[in-house]
Amino acid sequence: MSRPYNFSAGPATMPEEVLAQAAAEMLDWHGSGMSVMEMSHRGKAFMSICAQAEADLRELLAVPEHFRILFMQGGGLAENAIVPMNLSRGGTVDFVVTGAWSQKSHQEAQKYCHAQLAASSADSGFTTLPDPASWRLSRGASYLHLCSNETIHGVEFHELPDLRALGSDAPLVIDFSSHVLSRPIDWQRVGLAFGGAQKNIGPAGLTLVIVREDLLGHALAICPSAFDYRTVADNGSMFNTPPTYAIYVAGLTFQWIQRQREGDARGVAAMEQRAIARSQLLYDAIDRSEVFYNPVDRAHRSRMNVPFFLREPGPDGAAYARFLAGAEARGLLQLKGHKSVGGLRASLYNAMPLAGVQALVDWMREFERTQA
Amino acid sequence: MSRPYNFSAGPATMPEEVLAQAAAEMLDWHGSGMSVMEMSHRGKAFMSICAQAEADLRELLAVPEHFRILFMQGGGLAENAIVPMNLSRGGTVDFVVTGAWSQKSHQEAQKYCHAQLAASSADSGFTTLPDPASWRLSRGASYLHLCSNETIHGVEFHELPDLRALGSDAPLVIDFSSHVLSRPIDWQRVGLAFGGAQKNIGPAGLTLVIVREDLLGHALAICPSAFDYRTVADNGSMFNTPPTYAIYVAGLTFQWIQRQREGDARGVAAMEQRAIARSQLLYDAIDRSEVFYNPVDRAHRSRMNVPFFLREPGPDGAAYARFLAGAEARGLLQLKGHKSVGGLRASLYNAMPLAGVQALVDWMREFERTQA
Repeated sequence: MSRPYNFSAGPATMPEEVLAQAAAEMLDWHGSGMSVMEMSHRGKAFMSICAQAEADLRELLAVPEHFRILFMQGGGLAENAIVPMNLSRGGTVDFVVTGAWSQKSHQEAQKYCHAQLAASSADSGFTTLPDPASWRLSRGASYLHLCSNETIHGVEFHELPDLRALGSDAPLVIDFSSHVLSRPIDWQRVGLAFGGAQKNIGPAGLTLVIVREDLLGHALAICPSAFDYRTVADNGSMFNTPPTYAIYVAGLTFQWIQRQREGDARGVAAMEQRAIARSQLLYDAIDRSEVFYNPVDRAHRSRMNVPFFLREPGPDGAAYARFLAGAEARGLLQLKGHKSVGGLRASLYNAMPLAGVQALVDWMREFERTQA
Repeated sequence: MSRPYNFSAGPATMPEEVLAQAAAEMLDWHGSGMSVMEMSHRGKAFMSICAQAEADLRELLAVPEHFRILFMQGGGLAENAIVPMNLSRGGTVDFVVTGAWSQKSHQEAQKYCHAQLAASSADSGFTTLPDPASWRLSRGASYLHLCSNETIHGVEFHELPDLRALGSDAPLVIDFSSHVLSRPIDWQRVGLAFGGAQKNIGPAGLTLVIVREDLLGHALAICPSAFDYRTVADNGSMFNTPPTYAIYVAGLTFQWIQRQREGDARGVAAMEQRAIARSQLLYDAIDRSEVFYNPVDRAHRSRMNVPFFLREPGPDGAAYARFLAGAEARGLLQLKGHKSVGGLRASLYNAMPLAGVQALVDWMREFERTQA
């Protein structure tokens, strides 16, 4: 059968080439006679896989030399505790709350530091982003946290704030779980970026942390050794056994991204062009529709996660059920919205072809004509 | 090519059937059109995979109903912090130190509680186990921790201590990373068991925690939510995105164990018979040899991890290099000892066929005749 289009918010669709390569190499990686899953993490074979994955990620995101790349475990939710344990020094941390994920980060950090609310778009129902000029920045804050793409509410910082221009020396910490590798990162504005791999990269169980060297070494005494960035960095992400197979699959995905081209653009630049094309196609269809709508401020709409709703869902949301059943029949999967906001959501990660979005838009038009 | 025998201590050899099934299902799990890696962890398909894995593990280990099975991340090293954060209540905890792993557990716990040394076999170079009758048990200890199989030093508690008979009410916590599913567990003697999956089960990045219901809900305030057993249990291991593919592969391994038979024995009982046969074959060969030796007290030798040494390693350990090169040429892989103790080590996990141990013993005899 031809593969359906999978719009899951994460774990999420992956490039077919990556899955096919993983399947082909499952029993015997490069003539080693072993599966990658069976390799000692300290053996030559896996060490080379891990080093290549790190080098490829560094190349793709143009990560400067004074940043360390860490492969960790626990996902974004664990990092909500691990970041303040490592960076807060028990002091004040500023939070910009723009949706469900930054809200969780703000709440969890209160266990470890004075977590101050610098700005929030809660009043808007998280449909816009607060203007950086209005943020209340704390003097001497250990860092400022924001979520650069809110997977549930569908708002994205298309440009990261320049905290220095706003009068703050605090390092910027970004949760880039759901947009990593869909656009370049301006590392001059960032102190630390973290994200789970299960959205835009592939395998759940791998967490990326990219951190400026000078921010290492300040963990609280109660920070578990396995989550102390200094310890993880000093041991090349091998202090504890890393999620080896997930690192391998992420590495295959990095190589897939390196091979992609859109005109003159390659790698992450090509991914960004595709992300713009995919999201424009869907937002245009929504905005032209009299049946569907997206509530997010157009300037801050996410290219990765598009929540959308029916103006007339009908009794008990019967129209949603009809839309989802018809979608599934057409091979358009996992379009149900997050339970906290309801409605529909299409996640358009790197591995989603434009044809998948076109198929979704076609079904939306048909639904509008015949069933709405 | 025929698959070599992989004696790695972890990540480690896996059943070929499991790898073949994972490869066959990589692009399309059961007609879903999706890889397991691409499935939302909250979707029906993955929820069924996860529930089946949990049920199969419960059946295999005869886990009573009042114990919860948690799928977590971070491995044994992270659990060294997570267990005391959840169970110590900041009080006194007793540690029995019998090798490198329990030593690390004891050290890490000091961040969270009064970690008391109840017994240690350090004086013997960790070649025996201290007699439970000699343990100095603290009054009112929150729990007692031991590592029931020391992967590096090759000592194993073949019987778990009965703390109540020793006059203690403390729950027993065991690190069963490197023997899980190779023998039954007497749950009447256990409060909590934890272990990384990358030794006897398969994929790195998955941590098992099996915990008695009444021990939940006492986490320290500084425990990250993602590692609070109560939170993990209440959310069916889905508070944060679990390592979905690793859970799937572990589930395939559980089903493989269920299919195994040795005479009338099936499942874990069959695994135990094989473990006894494998380890006896190797220990007998070592004990009969004038070239190799194993320093561990015969009563406490591990069935899973067999460290062994050359009586005359030669200058710069040249004889070890010859042994390892000859082993590799015969498809006997990853036999180098852990860097902290040197020498050789053969890990004989569930997926290691007896023929693999026989091939190793054959090479040892040939080496002894011709090259020692």
